[in-house]
Amino acid sequence: MGKYSIGVDFGTESGRAVLVDIASGREMGTAVYPYSHGVIDEQLPDGGVRLEPDWALQDPQDYLRTFQNAVPQVLRESGIDPSDVIGIGIDFTACTMLPVKADGTPLCDLPEFRNRPHAWVKLWKHHAAQPEADRINHTAREMGESWLDRYGGKISSEWFFAKTLQILDEDPQVYEAADRLLEAADWVVWQLTGVETRNSCTAGYKAMWSKREGFPRKEFFKALDPRLENVIDEKLSRKIIPIGQRAGGLTEQAAGWTGLKPGTAVAIANVDAHVAVPAATVTEPGRMVMIMGTSTCDMVLGSEERIVPGMCGYTEDGIIPGFFGYEAGQSCVGDHFAWFVENCVPAAYDEEAKKRGMDIHQLLEEKAGKLKVGESGLLALDWWNGNRSVLVDVDLTGLLIGATLATKPEEIYRALIEATAFGKRIIIETFQKNGVPIHELVACGGLPEKNKLLMQIYADVIGLPIRVSASKQTPALGSAMFGAVAAGKAQGGYDSIYEAAREMAHLKAEVYTANKANQAVYEKIYAEYVLLHDYFGRGANDAMKHLKKIKAEVRK
Amino acid sequence: MGKYSIGVDFGTESGRAVLVDIASGREMGTAVYPYSHGVIDEQLPDGGVRLEPDWALQDPQDYLRTFQNAVPQVLRESGIDPSDVIGIGIDFTACTMLPVKADGTPLCDLPEFRNRPHAWVKLWKHHAAQPEADRINHTAREMGESWLDRYGGKISSEWFFAKTLQILDEDPQVYEAADRLLEAADWVVWQLTGVETRNSCTAGYKAMWSKREGFPRKEFFKALDPRLENVIDEKLSRKIIPIGQRAGGLTEQAAGWTGLKPGTAVAIANVDAHVAVPAATVTEPGRMVMIMGTSTCDMVLGSEERIVPGMCGYTEDGIIPGFFGYEAGQSCVGDHFAWFVENCVPAAYDEEAKKRGMDIHQLLEEKAGKLKVGESGLLALDWWNGNRSVLVDVDLTGLLIGATLATKPEEIYRALIEATAFGKRIIIETFQKNGVPIHELVACGGLPEKNKLLMQIYADVIGLPIRVSASKQTPALGSAMFGAVAAGKAQGGYDSIYEAAREMAHLKAEVYTANKANQAVYEKIYAEYVLLHDYFGRGANDAMKHLKKIKAEVRK
Repeated sequence: MGKYSIGVDFGTESGRAVLVDIASGREMGTAVYPYSHGVIDEQLPDGGVRLEPDWALQDPQDYLRTFQNAVPQVLRESGIDPSDVIGIGIDFTACTMLPVKADGTPLCDLPEFRNRPHAWVKLWKHHAAQPEADRINHTAREMGESWLDRYGGKISSEWFFAKTLQILDEDPQVYEAADRLLEAADWVVWQLTGVETRNSCTAGYKAMWSKREGFPRKEFFKALDPRLENVIDEKLSRKIIPIGQRAGGLTEQAAGWTGLKPGTAVAIANVDAHVAVPAATVTEPGRMVMIMGTSTCDMVLGSEERIVPGMCGYTEDGIIPGFFGYEAGQSCVGDHFAWFVENCVPAAYDEEAKKRGMDIHQLLEEKAGKLKVGESGLLALDWWNGNRSVLVDVDLTGLLIGATLATKPEEIYRALIEATAFGKRIIIETFQKNGVPIHELVACGGLPEKNKLLMQIYADVIGLPIRVSASKQTPALGSAMFGAVAAGKAQGGYDSIYEAAREMAHLKAEVYTANKANQAVYEKIYAEYVLLHDYFGRGANDAMKHLKKIKAEVRK
Repeated sequence: MGKYSIGVDFGTESGRAVLVDIASGREMGTAVYPYSHGVIDEQLPDGGVRLEPDWALQDPQDYLRTFQNAVPQVLRESGIDPSDVIGIGIDFTACTMLPVKADGTPLCDLPEFRNRPHAWVKLWKHHAAQPEADRINHTAREMGESWLDRYGGKISSEWFFAKTLQILDEDPQVYEAADRLLEAADWVVWQLTGVETRNSCTAGYKAMWSKREGFPRKEFFKALDPRLENVIDEKLSRKIIPIGQRAGGLTEQAAGWTGLKPGTAVAIANVDAHVAVPAATVTEPGRMVMIMGTSTCDMVLGSEERIVPGMCGYTEDGIIPGFFGYEAGQSCVGDHFAWFVENCVPAAYDEEAKKRGMDIHQLLEEKAGKLKVGESGLLALDWWNGNRSVLVDVDLTGLLIGATLATKPEEIYRALIEATAFGKRIIIETFQKNGVPIHELVACGGLPEKNKLLMQIYADVIGLPIRVSASKQTPALGSAMFGAVAAGKAQGGYDSIYEAAREMAHLKAEVYTANKANQAVYEKIYAEYVLLHDYFGRGANDAMKHLKKIKAEVRK
């Protein structure tokens, strides 16, 4: 009899359960639960409390409903006997965090806090804590905090202590009432096992923790706000558990929700992007994983600790135990093309696509694919949503240069794709120059499946071979792999993520490699990109920031 | 009984006759003759001779057919007695030139030259003589020719001697067979009067002639090509007649074509843009006329000779006798918006416009008009078709900066309008700084009628009052005014263009003036524009040229 594991991937709009054959990695079934409250960004669910702009909340009960609906469904539909499911792993968006009582009850589930926005889950894309992030960065720089270097010199408004500080600033009663503050990732594992654990991935990437130095010192928190001095000991935990461990076994209650057997092994929580790395076959240095969707997350392992300017962060044991996991990213990739299609494609193209029974993206890909490299004369800076790596600057904006009266939509579309490829190359070269080797790329996520032109352009621009993950749902597969590791070999699983990856993770046969002629032309265009990148991105011309400031002033 | 004059405006696609009441300037009727061969840019009319890219020819018979069709039609439809029409004036695109025999017969009308492209009329937008223009500029710089300064340091491939040199280079037999080389403007006047005359406007602006220095010296022409040494004496004429003179009277033959009386006064030829100046009421320094269509031509009079960097040229007596006529221009204005509408407006906008029974430009104007100044955060460099003034560089290309995922089409549309306004302000300030005062703007052409938002943006950006010509067909009105001057006061016309302008030219009552709040925000955005303009336009970053070079290489 085969043994199976379930991975549950908690996304922005829904939760997804995937049941995987432990021996082969074969995905036996998938079930998706769309969150009943989705993203809460206008008003709280029951009652008329309206939210400020940039807020994004979730209802923690939607996560439990994912266990109650998607897991039984995938068991039912795959026809697998629950007693053959030996492990479960979860991954989550991050930093997605919430305040709870000592017993794990979310504050928003208590009647007295139900209409208090700060009592709810703050989703990763809650962007209202920018003033707090600014304060954290300013204070850390002033105090010379060494951990700042691990995050490219700047932490994001999306991260744990920016969100924590916003709660304290704006609703100190919620802060006061919260016995625990934690990642939703760890909270759902707590709900499954009855045990509160904290994973090294979110702690390291989102909460300024490191294996060697722990959390920032008390003096730093005190400088931010005296009430925050003991936040770690009061509301978090100094016990951080490395990725790849067993968090516990399923409680009777959780077994009832899921239809699995009590005691089934549950893995320590993980983050959606990071858990995709072993699912893309990568458990060693040198091969960068690109998770390509609306934005792109780039991850690479290193044997040594290196400070790489402009990355999002690095964490020891953060992705694969025993390695430093380095993370970088581009904030506008699929979003870029979606914006273009929605705002810049003329009616004639829509009609042509309709007539030919094509998706508009397909039509644009076909037209753009017929262009020779360089023939449009266009070049873009891919900063429509700021620049995450390597400039770490949300105030940068998009630029297009080279337009003429003969410029066609597909030329602009291709220039936007190329711009993201150039941006990627800068990230890769920055890693390489700073002692983190990269010799191959592995792509996963929605884009590589859909857009072969994009993959070829990346290969031509970057000059490294690109392979593609065989799974279309790498995060859930990765979580299932960690579920198998949590179960262990004795139970029919694996003793390490390396073994699990060897058997369960697969790549497609195809490899994208550079066309030498295209590569030669892209070398010249890339030289122009780098000049513009540095000119507008490193302070020589702050037009983007000045225009953004004017925009903010006139919108007041 | 009233007296009347007819102005005939020879455009790119058609000829237009307007019959005007000399006392009031009232336009009594208009008739348009669409050229049967239009712009010849793919193959010669009869026979399969294909043209190279960038060629643009016309058939001179189309000009005569304009006299034969449009003039009788406007007489008929207005019901005016031909004996009350005392003058006729014409204006033409320029430089539009042709080779003819000594009796005026165009070479392309001779059977032996009918299938030779160089025997036809080269239209203003024939752009295939760039190598010849480069040679002229290079040689003039090498030889230190002083006239180069009058044209902003560079002459265009569109101009007379570039086209002449191309004929000599590529078809020396046509050059040899041509007894005369002349502007189509002068050729149609010759056809009307039987007398070959040469006007000061095209000679000055397009053929490097000046009242004080004449044409370039023989040594210069010889250096270009020994066969060109005596081109002026052999194929042109040193007798250049100032604008505002009488060329002659209508011949019997031309009277037959037009239905006018033999002997009717015919004015010296003029250029469409330049003749619009007095028709826009401007016969004195300080008031710049902007002729706003697909591109924009800016004209201002000065009492003194000034070298202004980056203008298209200046000519004494070139626009109004007694003044230096300064000309500058922007190569992409209406074209800019047309490009945007064709290539960048999504289907949803087309549907909305259709539903609301609006033109798509109107819808965009409405949406763009609701935006506050600066709220889009966008800024463009209006170089989609190069930069005519003040950078005189066809290799510059368009740039858009400040795009985000929230950027809407109407924001880009408005940014393109603003970019042309910023470009205009640079032109105006360059004139002002170099001793050519400007204190008011007068707009004419198609755009001011159609786009009030654009006019207000210009007023806000530039800070000068803008008035609009009352006539929708200023060139034809201007030609009719010169027709009335050719007739003279004794015949019921006028003795000078000043008098004619006083009675016949009118402005609308509305004046666009700056909104102070908008102006303040535009000051800040303009500062950013100037920085980008100089950075990309003056050699600090030649990305535009490098990309264009790559484009040319890969398209080979």
